[in-house]
Amino acid sequence: MQKVNTAPLSGFMELLPTDQMVFDQIKQVISDVHHANGFLSVDLPLIYREEILLAKAGGDTEKQIYQLQKGDNKLALRFDHTVPLAAYIAENQNDLVFPFKVSNIGKNYRGERSQRGRYREFYQCDCDVIGRGELSIAYDAEVIGVIYEIYKKLNFGEFTLRVSNRKLLNGFLTSLNLQNILAVSHVIDGAEKISEAELIRQFQLLNITKEMIAKIVQFINISGTNSEVLSKLKALEIDNADFVAGLSELETVMDLLAKKGVDNAKIDLMIVRGLDYYTGTVYETILNDYPEIGSISSGGRYDNLTDSYTNERFQGVGASIGLTRLFYVLQENGIVTTERTSPVDVLLVPFSRKQFEYCYILSDTIKNAGKTVDIFLADDKLGKKLSYANKAHVKNVIVVGENEVENGNVMVKNMDNGELSTLDEYLNN
Amino acid sequence: MQKVNTAPLSGFMELLPTDQMVFDQIKQVISDVHHANGFLSVDLPLIYREEILLAKAGGDTEKQIYQLQKGDNKLALRFDHTVPLAAYIAENQNDLVFPFKVSNIGKNYRGERSQRGRYREFYQCDCDVIGRGELSIAYDAEVIGVIYEIYKKLNFGEFTLRVSNRKLLNGFLTSLNLQNILAVSHVIDGAEKISEAELIRQFQLLNITKEMIAKIVQFINISGTNSEVLSKLKALEIDNADFVAGLSELETVMDLLAKKGVDNAKIDLMIVRGLDYYTGTVYETILNDYPEIGSISSGGRYDNLTDSYTNERFQGVGASIGLTRLFYVLQENGIVTTERTSPVDVLLVPFSRKQFEYCYILSDTIKNAGKTVDIFLADDKLGKKLSYANKAHVKNVIVVGENEVENGNVMVKNMDNGELSTLDEYLNN
Repeated sequence: MQKVNTAPLSGFMELLPTDQMVFDQIKQVISDVHHANGFLSVDLPLIYREEILLAKAGGDTEKQIYQLQKGDNKLALRFDHTVPLAAYIAENQNDLVFPFKVSNIGKNYRGERSQRGRYREFYQCDCDVIGRGELSIAYDAEVIGVIYEIYKKLNFGEFTLRVSNRKLLNGFLTSLNLQNILAVSHVIDGAEKISEAELIRQFQLLNITKEMIAKIVQFINISGTNSEVLSKLKALEIDNADFVAGLSELETVMDLLAKKGVDNAKIDLMIVRGLDYYTGTVYETILNDYPEIGSISSGGRYDNLTDSYTNERFQGVGASIGLTRLFYVLQENGIVTTERTSPVDVLLVPFSRKQFEYCYILSDTIKNAGKTVDIFLADDKLGKKLSYANKAHVKNVIVVGENEVENGNVMVKNMDNGELSTLDEYLNN
Repeated sequence: MQKVNTAPLSGFMELLPTDQMVFDQIKQVISDVHHANGFLSVDLPLIYREEILLAKAGGDTEKQIYQLQKGDNKLALRFDHTVPLAAYIAENQNDLVFPFKVSNIGKNYRGERSQRGRYREFYQCDCDVIGRGELSIAYDAEVIGVIYEIYKKLNFGEFTLRVSNRKLLNGFLTSLNLQNILAVSHVIDGAEKISEAELIRQFQLLNITKEMIAKIVQFINISGTNSEVLSKLKALEIDNADFVAGLSELETVMDLLAKKGVDNAKIDLMIVRGLDYYTGTVYETILNDYPEIGSISSGGRYDNLTDSYTNERFQGVGASIGLTRLFYVLQENGIVTTERTSPVDVLLVPFSRKQFEYCYILSDTIKNAGKTVDIFLADDKLGKKLSYANKAHVKNVIVVGENEVENGNVMVKNMDNGELSTLDEYLNN
């Protein structure tokens, strides 16, 4: 009989259980930190009417969207959490309490061109704060602080939170009387990946004068401690409302991050992020030893979140971790190594069915002590049972024969070092 | 400006955060019990080539499937966990350790006719044990035992696990020399929802003689304690291999369940379940006080899980909870009531930005004690800040003004009873 090909689709991550365990542990840390900081979970639909998803999207997004054939409605799979969240807030604005701190962890879909490390099905782990009307700038520091806490807990090595502000950049470019600010911002967004000569060439293509190019290059390279950078920015004495507002916001955000004990946030004026989306604070995150991986978390401030859906105005600020890609690069770079160890603490191996009942009792004792436990219930020979213990890499094994049932003395064998202990000793350690 | 309709699609559950919290708590209990019993998590793709999903499906499933327009492949959304799991096992059979105990919790999609309590996007929470070749009957008791443990922990009231065996039923019907066993089984499957007169009429439509109908009706109504039912079945002295094997399996399963301390498993010969799927043990679960809700968990033994995908033979047994429908009926019947209480333990309310730094420090202390904490960071008047605390139904509030920062004495106000305690008292309780 012809068999169906079972390989997963290109761009879809399928993990073995031991890898899945590591993936899920990272997801759990993210979720725990969200909750610890007062963010409430939502779990929104994956399918929407296409008009909701495309109300604001354009260009690439529209091409990458997965459309569904079903009934009369034109449907599609969500491609991020932001659009569904905006629709949810518009729909439930009278039942939600604002500022609304929301944790949104789930799968999204983009039919991108397939390549290594790019996924078409991917987890986004977002935390956002949404305000009805104005939202305090203090929440910008709040979401960046959440990312700090997450990566401190995950302990993947030293990292840097690179922070900038779109108002500041827009104000600066406006003060130069440039016409094509979006195009210039786009070039700055890619500046890190190209040489300075190429950067200058790209600015020249936009018909920017040499003098102006020099000013832009100087601006995005302003460096020093955060207070030095802020001083240099003030010293520019640019009299533009956006610039002044952006500078003040950036100063506040950096001040609050310092007060929160975030010791690795750096002002970095090369950070731009999504062009038609962010309106104030923007940030990215890099692992200091692996800058080539790119940003492992990013986000920022957005206005008019819901203007396609409601006349009420909502502002938000969010921080996102693309977990599927992150997990891929962590494994590729050996930053997380998947242990082949089973998550199961104890495997009970009864000699025969006669010991099942006793194993059930032991199993309850072990579970009540907060451990996980498996019982090998197949009718195999002892050798085969123990080979399962080895192949599954369980941490501890208890063999239960007639003697054990009679005496009630069972020994826990640590499979790493072969040491034996009584069950009481094991459970009380 | 014309606004886009943001109402969720019919058949898609969208919860407010306080409801979501209850939903997630139930999901967590299910997941915890799976893990405690040695089941390993997988998190498989939602999108597959249509040929994988439809390799075994037919009829209704094919009509209900969500198809995707993307590229050359004909794609579709998964409609259960079983088909993706079968493909995963065929694909990874050399890297998995068998018996493979797997926990599979996630969303599935069926474009069913929309009606109250029916969802097109729904969570299935499955645990399965898959054996390469033969799988011990002891695992049938294992998965039913997991369901017992889950519903004991969830504490929704008394419930009954109704257990039968398809080999037993098939063997019995074969012994009557009936030609159309599948059609007869289908009628038995619906027997509970109709009167005995209607049941008899449906059997008559299948051209079954009065005498035979009487025998079938008598068989499915065999009752008594489990050992009485087993005795009555043995007393039938039916000499059919399926019947004998089914009876032996059922006896073993009931015996092991008793040994596990499962005190509410009842043999019930009306239980049939999916016709072209289960091959041995089948079970359903009802809440004793709400039988009209129908089964809140079901499953059973299936052979040839992977025969569309590989020549290697795998057998399995599984137990499934349809969480989305379950949550709906629990709410409808008042079995779970959504508390309007926020999951946030403590809300810190600073008088002004001057107290932010102190609140950050308090917040770290509270988080380190394992509590969740929110800080109200908007620049509102105190009255408005406290009205947020009320509307969000946070459990405890700490107001932080200049005095508190100076003295370090903060008071925790319990919002339920208005009682005050020091932070130390609160954290050590």
